[in-house]
Amino acid sequence: MASVPVFRYKRHVLIKFCAEYLLALGATDEEASIVADGIVTAASRWHPGKGQGLEKLFRLTIQTSNGGIYNGAEFEVLKDTPAVSHVDGHKGYGYVIAAKAMNMAIEKAKKVGIGAVSVRHSNHYGQAGFHAETATKAGMIGIVMSNARAELAPWGAKTPVVGTNPWGLGIPRDNGFPILLDLALSMSGEGMVRWAYREGVSIPDNYVLTKEGNRSTDPADFIRETPNGLVFQGTQMPIGEFKGFGLAFFTDVLSGVLSGSLFGTEVFQDISNHDVGHFVMAINPDIFMPHDEFQQRLEQLVQMFYAAEPTDPDSKLFLPGELEFITERENEKIGIPIDTTTVENLRRLAEERGIQCPL
Amino acid sequence: MASVPVFRYKRHVLIKFCAEYLLALGATDEEASIVADGIVTAASRWHPGKGQGLEKLFRLTIQTSNGGIYNGAEFEVLKDTPAVSHVDGHKGYGYVIAAKAMNMAIEKAKKVGIGAVSVRHSNHYGQAGFHAETATKAGMIGIVMSNARAELAPWGAKTPVVGTNPWGLGIPRDNGFPILLDLALSMSGEGMVRWAYREGVSIPDNYVLTKEGNRSTDPADFIRETPNGLVFQGTQMPIGEFKGFGLAFFTDVLSGVLSGSLFGTEVFQDISNHDVGHFVMAINPDIFMPHDEFQQRLEQLVQMFYAAEPTDPDSKLFLPGELEFITERENEKIGIPIDTTTVENLRRLAEERGIQCPL
Repeated sequence: MASVPVFRYKRHVLIKFCAEYLLALGATDEEASIVADGIVTAASRWHPGKGQGLEKLFRLTIQTSNGGIYNGAEFEVLKDTPAVSHVDGHKGYGYVIAAKAMNMAIEKAKKVGIGAVSVRHSNHYGQAGFHAETATKAGMIGIVMSNARAELAPWGAKTPVVGTNPWGLGIPRDNGFPILLDLALSMSGEGMVRWAYREGVSIPDNYVLTKEGNRSTDPADFIRETPNGLVFQGTQMPIGEFKGFGLAFFTDVLSGVLSGSLFGTEVFQDISNHDVGHFVMAINPDIFMPHDEFQQRLEQLVQMFYAAEPTDPDSKLFLPGELEFITERENEKIGIPIDTTTVENLRRLAEERGIQCPL
Repeated sequence: MASVPVFRYKRHVLIKFCAEYLLALGATDEEASIVADGIVTAASRWHPGKGQGLEKLFRLTIQTSNGGIYNGAEFEVLKDTPAVSHVDGHKGYGYVIAAKAMNMAIEKAKKVGIGAVSVRHSNHYGQAGFHAETATKAGMIGIVMSNARAELAPWGAKTPVVGTNPWGLGIPRDNGFPILLDLALSMSGEGMVRWAYREGVSIPDNYVLTKEGNRSTDPADFIRETPNGLVFQGTQMPIGEFKGFGLAFFTDVLSGVLSGSLFGTEVFQDISNHDVGHFVMAINPDIFMPHDEFQQRLEQLVQMFYAAEPTDPDSKLFLPGELEFITERENEKIGIPIDTTTVENLRRLAEERGIQCPL
């Protein structure tokens, strides 16, 4: 993807700014701390302007003012067993609700080997991998999923029913970065189609389907130009075609139907009531075998991975998540890139709220 | 796929024959009953000759004679908590070991909401969906996964590291068939490429990669003719490209690394010691909300599914698993199809063992 113009900042500068901005929106100290960590971590690992970084503050600004997000929302435990909990996030910050749910799952997994928490009445939780990584930091295998706005049509149909319902899967490693999968259940995303349209390049025919349900490599078949910008028309192509749709449907049952949140075509429609559901799990390897034995076996599998022969002999193989950790490490040195448009908008918003903006 | 010549039989005839054949191989009554059910259920839902039906008896014949499968193997519980178990199948029938593991998971889920069982030293368990369906019959959401012979290369590589590691995901429904996903984490399978080669037709370029790591639509690029038949050369394409590889890698960690079975390139290599690992889970919806409420919400999502607009207005949409249940129902009336080659081979094997063959 073509690089956008950016400014670069130290992590602690961004964390401080995000936290102060969130406090100004009315967040509690705990909320400001968790959300700032989630947002800045995303910014440090992913492409600037991709939508997961500081640009998230814009939506949080809207949602904290329209009743979509309540500051200081209660985190209510509706049901609790030694292995599962059912919790109600009461429209708090999704980042915070998911983080608390994962911590509950971890505590259960420590004792009985697995913990699962079903979450209702939440909001967008940032990157699924961020919460799976929390599990790995506690030595746990983490599984995190959420429903989202409907963008996937049943295979053979042209109208969307379920979201791309992102998953985060994490495996703890003593030796090196955790293995971290952070994936939507679609081949690509709308942002990529918009970018291809602007750049005038074609896209693979397995990214998206037109609103008529057809494949196309021409991004113009998916884009409508409006006074408010480029509007995407069509549906996302699920990974593995009918298989990925099935996985996304299953994800909505676990995170939406089972939790008591909205689901299917209804979730994420009203910005003042996204009503997202999550399902988070932690699995404790130490229950199944001695810690070092699991880690040694895992390293054997990792070595098998690196021993695979690259198709291009000059290329290198990367474990899931590895490139993002390398990017983050690099950005710790040279600064975390924030696209200039986002910076300008944040400066304006900060000024409106009387917050000192170090950006 | 072109239809193969078949004979058709009543389910009870096939069950009786399979069970008697397995007893002749030395299976216990319980083993014969579970394996026969798994094999005949697969035959009743899937394409004849696809490899999941009665043709499985050939490999079981070899494995029970070469030490790959022990009749009457102990099912040993190594570790047990209210939510998880770690079990050793001691090289018994995979169908039986997975069935017992799922029943343990269900019992735990009844009490604490979730049950997970890690299984080591098992064999091929048949269709993953068969075991996920067991969960749905008990009113549980089922999640079943296994490792398998390495057929997927890391994205960007050309040598396989992990299997297509099939998943079974099941959702219980009071109203109609359970929702049942039974999917390998690859786009297709070797059998489809061999079929296309024999028929002289091309394949989509996202099915498989050549042994040089390239895409091709010509099945001849993947097939080597040998005196023993058509040998597939290359690797399977994961669903969602790098995403599906990540899912399969994660699956091998959960089912192989964590269980104490073989994993990566080593599992499923020696027919006298496949040493497969599984990970099975059951989740009890009734812990999270009243039974009828969950079922009503699920039906709402199902209605959203059926309300999607088909791309071809004359076509109909099917939930995951629905087509297979319809096929099974149809075959209950007209007989379950077994391809004639399999029947001829079974007649010969039965005669060798002095079993009356009703086929």
